[in-house]
Amino acid sequence: MDLEKLHHLFYPKSIAIVGASTNPLKPGGQPLAALLSAGYPGKLFPINPRYTEINGLECYPNLKAVETKIDLAIIAVPAQDVPGVLQECGETGVKTAIIFSSGFAETGEAGKKLQEELLAVAQNYGLRFAGPNCLGIVNAPAKVMANFAVSHHPEKVIKENAYAFISQSGGFGTITYAEAQKQGLGAQILVSTGNAADLDFTTFLEYIVRHTGVKAVAAYLEGVKDGKRFAQVADEALAKGIPLIILKVGKHQVAAQAARSHTGSMVGDDDIYQGFFFQKGIIRVNSVEEMLPLLSLFADGKLPQGNRIGILSSSGGGSVYLADLCTDAGLEVVKLAPETCRKLQENLPAFITAGNPVDLTSHAMMEEGILKNALEAVLADPAVDLVLVYFNVAGEPTRQIIGQLEATYRKASKPILCIGWSHNEEDHLLAQELMRKAGIPHTLQVEHGVKALASLAHYSRHRRTLLESQEAPRLSPGTGNPAVEFLSGLGYKELSEREAKKLLELYGIPVAREEVARSPEEAVAIANSIGYPVALKVLSPDILHKTEAGGVMLNLQSPEAIAAAYDQIMTNARSFKPEARLDGVLVAEMIPPGRELILGIKADPTFGNCVLVGMGGIFVEVMRDFAAGIPPLSQEEAASLLRRLKGYPLLEAFRNQGPADLDSLLAVLRQLSRLALDLEGKIQELEINPLIVGEQGQGVKAADALILLK
Amino acid sequence: MDLEKLHHLFYPKSIAIVGASTNPLKPGGQPLAALLSAGYPGKLFPINPRYTEINGLECYPNLKAVETKIDLAIIAVPAQDVPGVLQECGETGVKTAIIFSSGFAETGEAGKKLQEELLAVAQNYGLRFAGPNCLGIVNAPAKVMANFAVSHHPEKVIKENAYAFISQSGGFGTITYAEAQKQGLGAQILVSTGNAADLDFTTFLEYIVRHTGVKAVAAYLEGVKDGKRFAQVADEALAKGIPLIILKVGKHQVAAQAARSHTGSMVGDDDIYQGFFFQKGIIRVNSVEEMLPLLSLFADGKLPQGNRIGILSSSGGGSVYLADLCTDAGLEVVKLAPETCRKLQENLPAFITAGNPVDLTSHAMMEEGILKNALEAVLADPAVDLVLVYFNVAGEPTRQIIGQLEATYRKASKPILCIGWSHNEEDHLLAQELMRKAGIPHTLQVEHGVKALASLAHYSRHRRTLLESQEAPRLSPGTGNPAVEFLSGLGYKELSEREAKKLLELYGIPVAREEVARSPEEAVAIANSIGYPVALKVLSPDILHKTEAGGVMLNLQSPEAIAAAYDQIMTNARSFKPEARLDGVLVAEMIPPGRELILGIKADPTFGNCVLVGMGGIFVEVMRDFAAGIPPLSQEEAASLLRRLKGYPLLEAFRNQGPADLDSLLAVLRQLSRLALDLEGKIQELEINPLIVGEQGQGVKAADALILLK
Repeated sequence: MDLEKLHHLFYPKSIAIVGASTNPLKPGGQPLAALLSAGYPGKLFPINPRYTEINGLECYPNLKAVETKIDLAIIAVPAQDVPGVLQECGETGVKTAIIFSSGFAETGEAGKKLQEELLAVAQNYGLRFAGPNCLGIVNAPAKVMANFAVSHHPEKVIKENAYAFISQSGGFGTITYAEAQKQGLGAQILVSTGNAADLDFTTFLEYIVRHTGVKAVAAYLEGVKDGKRFAQVADEALAKGIPLIILKVGKHQVAAQAARSHTGSMVGDDDIYQGFFFQKGIIRVNSVEEMLPLLSLFADGKLPQGNRIGILSSSGGGSVYLADLCTDAGLEVVKLAPETCRKLQENLPAFITAGNPVDLTSHAMMEEGILKNALEAVLADPAVDLVLVYFNVAGEPTRQIIGQLEATYRKASKPILCIGWSHNEEDHLLAQELMRKAGIPHTLQVEHGVKALASLAHYSRHRRTLLESQEAPRLSPGTGNPAVEFLSGLGYKELSEREAKKLLELYGIPVAREEVARSPEEAVAIANSIGYPVALKVLSPDILHKTEAGGVMLNLQSPEAIAAAYDQIMTNARSFKPEARLDGVLVAEMIPPGRELILGIKADPTFGNCVLVGMGGIFVEVMRDFAAGIPPLSQEEAASLLRRLKGYPLLEAFRNQGPADLDSLLAVLRQLSRLALDLEGKIQELEINPLIVGEQGQGVKAADALILLK
Repeated sequence: MDLEKLHHLFYPKSIAIVGASTNPLKPGGQPLAALLSAGYPGKLFPINPRYTEINGLECYPNLKAVETKIDLAIIAVPAQDVPGVLQECGETGVKTAIIFSSGFAETGEAGKKLQEELLAVAQNYGLRFAGPNCLGIVNAPAKVMANFAVSHHPEKVIKENAYAFISQSGGFGTITYAEAQKQGLGAQILVSTGNAADLDFTTFLEYIVRHTGVKAVAAYLEGVKDGKRFAQVADEALAKGIPLIILKVGKHQVAAQAARSHTGSMVGDDDIYQGFFFQKGIIRVNSVEEMLPLLSLFADGKLPQGNRIGILSSSGGGSVYLADLCTDAGLEVVKLAPETCRKLQENLPAFITAGNPVDLTSHAMMEEGILKNALEAVLADPAVDLVLVYFNVAGEPTRQIIGQLEATYRKASKPILCIGWSHNEEDHLLAQELMRKAGIPHTLQVEHGVKALASLAHYSRHRRTLLESQEAPRLSPGTGNPAVEFLSGLGYKELSEREAKKLLELYGIPVAREEVARSPEEAVAIANSIGYPVALKVLSPDILHKTEAGGVMLNLQSPEAIAAAYDQIMTNARSFKPEARLDGVLVAEMIPPGRELILGIKADPTFGNCVLVGMGGIFVEVMRDFAAGIPPLSQEEAASLLRRLKGYPLLEAFRNQGPADLDSLLAVLRQLSRLALDLEGKIQELEINPLIVGEQGQGVKAADALILLK
């Protein structure tokens, strides 16, 4: 889309407020008052036939009466009047609008109709709008307070171009924005999407990532319409190094879905989102408390090389506590170099041994220079990637200590997070304010501060590997693709195991050797060619779970055993489902035992075909151990999908087993992701269960496969 | 011990301050100033030969000059002078002391000696003391500010008899106490244990639980000396319904320990603490942020009947968010009764459908009565056990709304947690203050607030089941106990499998049938009596892991196979360890396959013999899936030990397997806990690996066992 249009929304040279009010508590009054008090430098046009003047500005009866071209119209009139106003916007060449008014799709069918009317008018004139039923937009550095919920506190904005916050809930967004301001972590940009009839979450995100220069984007998300567009924007943000920090709600609102495959029936909407976030390096948070320290740290723009942390603490007890929290969060409380310890020891009382955490003792905090010297020593240690400083101040030295901290922070290329604290309320507030002004990342949330450092380290590493990693090449979709042709030749939706395996083979996924036998004699002949032992499996488009039907016999060692098994399988299948069409049995090679995994594809309404992987058997069934990814999967994305499994350690060497053949497994995952893309919209479910993974160099084999078409 | 003495420490009628100072910032000046400003009602005696008067009080040159009997002496003099002062305390009949002075065991060997001197003096006179190197004690309702770190803010104490806070770190304790006060959650009692030369953590805890009437105890804990005493006090607290909320640090400080058994080598000190906390219903927190909302809720004293939560929210977005957090925390966002929905609907705009969470909408919050009516409706619903109220207020209705909330809260028997919020800083502070005064549990930490509700529900349920559950009866320890006698007859530390199983049999733990054969012929004869198939296992006190030595052959079906296996095992064992004494082979029954678990005992330096249980094979080895418990185990404690395993679902019915024989498994766990108690100090490690657990009614069997004595 034409994102340039959104410049008029975020950086308008002229704003009209339709439904302007003199009451600063009303939706039509609040933005006017806020724009004026913020010192908005563009032109402002209150529109209201009942006034000739508001707050010293000339008030116009309607948009037509304004001679200047309007970049942005804020619309705060009753719902039924909005289509008319929007029509007038179109006729007078207004470029963008924000519709505060509620009473649209959120209220039911009639409102939905009215909302569709808005969209039709806007599209007719090429006008883009936010809302309806939204709280508007803030662009603090441009002094655009086009909203009716939050006030402008430039002194509470964390720093220029720090971060944007997009919210799909007006009330919740406001709470978060205000709480962030209170902590001195105010956003540069706030967007309330409201009903998103025209401009939606992804569009705002795309614009912000591409055009505003913010260092991070935070969001409250209920869901997107088009997962693939979201994925593209997420890729762009990752490439630009703009982290996305998302509070996604609706975790437990699982739409009831019938599914035939094991994985299919277990994977919910949120599992797919979770997989998507992980894969794209999006930082998911579960609470506002978790989000805020992240913003302070991520908006600083420094990325660590690794996860090795140095901790300075003015409390001995605190240092053990912090070391615990860091280790729990996945940070390594690294051993400092002897040279660092030597430098530290000069600063410390004799009975304290310099180590990591550095116990500065409360005594040491009463003198200037001690914290600074210790911090510089730890920053200079090549083993340290990032630093946590936990200190308390009181009285006279507060300003000096934080002044020195600022100087050290400015020179440092490694990320630093400060938790500065005082028993004395006055010094406490002073310390926070000094750190905010200095732009030093700081928080009072110890637990979430540590988690934020861990997220930063994880993001940094994850981003590096993701960007280095290659995407899987894919076949062209549509006709000409042999897989598509193969499927189009079928007249039914449930593929036989044989057909399913054929499809996998088209993508180079190794399947167990097997051939169809229509009599005991044929079965024996095939076994003679494949070699003993073999397995026999019933072949029927009407029997999906063959084991339950008594349709599988394993490890058959002789012609006699094969002949007997053939007859038994036929008898079992007939009694299991008398109406089933029986096409014979598959005679299959027995694969040497190995790790068993389940691979699958599931069609998701938001993200399209997703790739699933789980450890086999009890792990996936009893422990719900699987991970979801969005195709295409790069080498690293496929690898990280595996690493997310609880049972991942089972793929490493243990006891007498060597490590699993990860190269072959990753290749299959990436091929499966190609298949998922190529057959988008065609596959309902696909499951390879099990995929048998040999030890290193021994390859993998799909022992069984199930495919349902749409 | 004679806890009565501690009354003089917490409720002293007279206090002497040795080393009293006119400077309120000095350790000798701060308590004097704090006691005076708090209005301490007892008698105060500053002691300092340099003054005749301090703060209007007569100052004495030494304790002997005071004619009144002193209940508590606060000692704030240099370390080297402390033994002399304590001696004087003893001579003048001072009952208790608090020693602020540092320079003792925390500084090294010389300090340790000095500390021992203190203890000797005190014991000589029957005087009890806190410290040295501590920050002292606060008992706010009694106005005893016997500390030099925190100030008295009676208006910040959450409520009378709310909770006590015990800290093993002075600095950290102070930070936490001050932060709690800032949130209006100040403790009644604060104890800084310091070096705990005499009065230690457990003693303080015992006194507080037994004698102070607090509703909860919070603590910062690095470790206790005697786990068994701690366990007794924890049991007492549980029985009295005084929850213990503990921030235990040093999680990752694992003392390097050599161990022979699988579980033994994996279980660290903190795993044992974790098991202990879980077993005794102690709420473990990982951060101060997590602790504070718990205090607000637990100090209220209301326990819910279950975990079914009703949520009221004035933000639609917030309500989805809260439902997610509640579900994640293990609370059930329950469906409300039709009658409740009907009552709610009367209060809500037509386009909102009444459900749980109740979306009150921000509009509804502007009118009085709406929140109150909705809250009463939800409280009256029999399906609801506890309630979360998330609301924002602004302007005029703030006082009225919270006033109504208070009235409803007072009538309610179900726990309520409020998160009340305003964009407007002034209303925000007002709302917090009104809720504090009203005693309504409230927090601004949404995530941890929800976790606190979940902890409350869990504590309530866990406490009920623990109190209902019976302890395992145990044999008497010491001589006369056949197990002790059996062990005392052995001259070596590593028991053979046969001996180990014999010991288990003494406790009624079923073991696989087996007999010793010293020749192939004997082996065949035994197999003929046990029945085929059998397993052969090498019998040698010098070979612990038999499989690795090639000393195990399974599933032998015939006399020929047995004879061959016998010879093979002997050959393997000789080449594995030529110097090993070979006593023949065990001919053992083959146990039908079942779930495999590992059970064990480990001697812990703090808690003594602990019971360990893990899912067998890969679960315990690769995934570190085990849980630790402190004997004796009651039925419920044993059951909850199992439920803590990640692989617990494997014990339930799945696929074609019925549920595991939990009754037999629990019986074995409880018997093992008896054994652990009876043989305290005698066993170094014990491991049953595997314990094969059949389906319901089929029993369990120890297939192999390993015991190392101390």
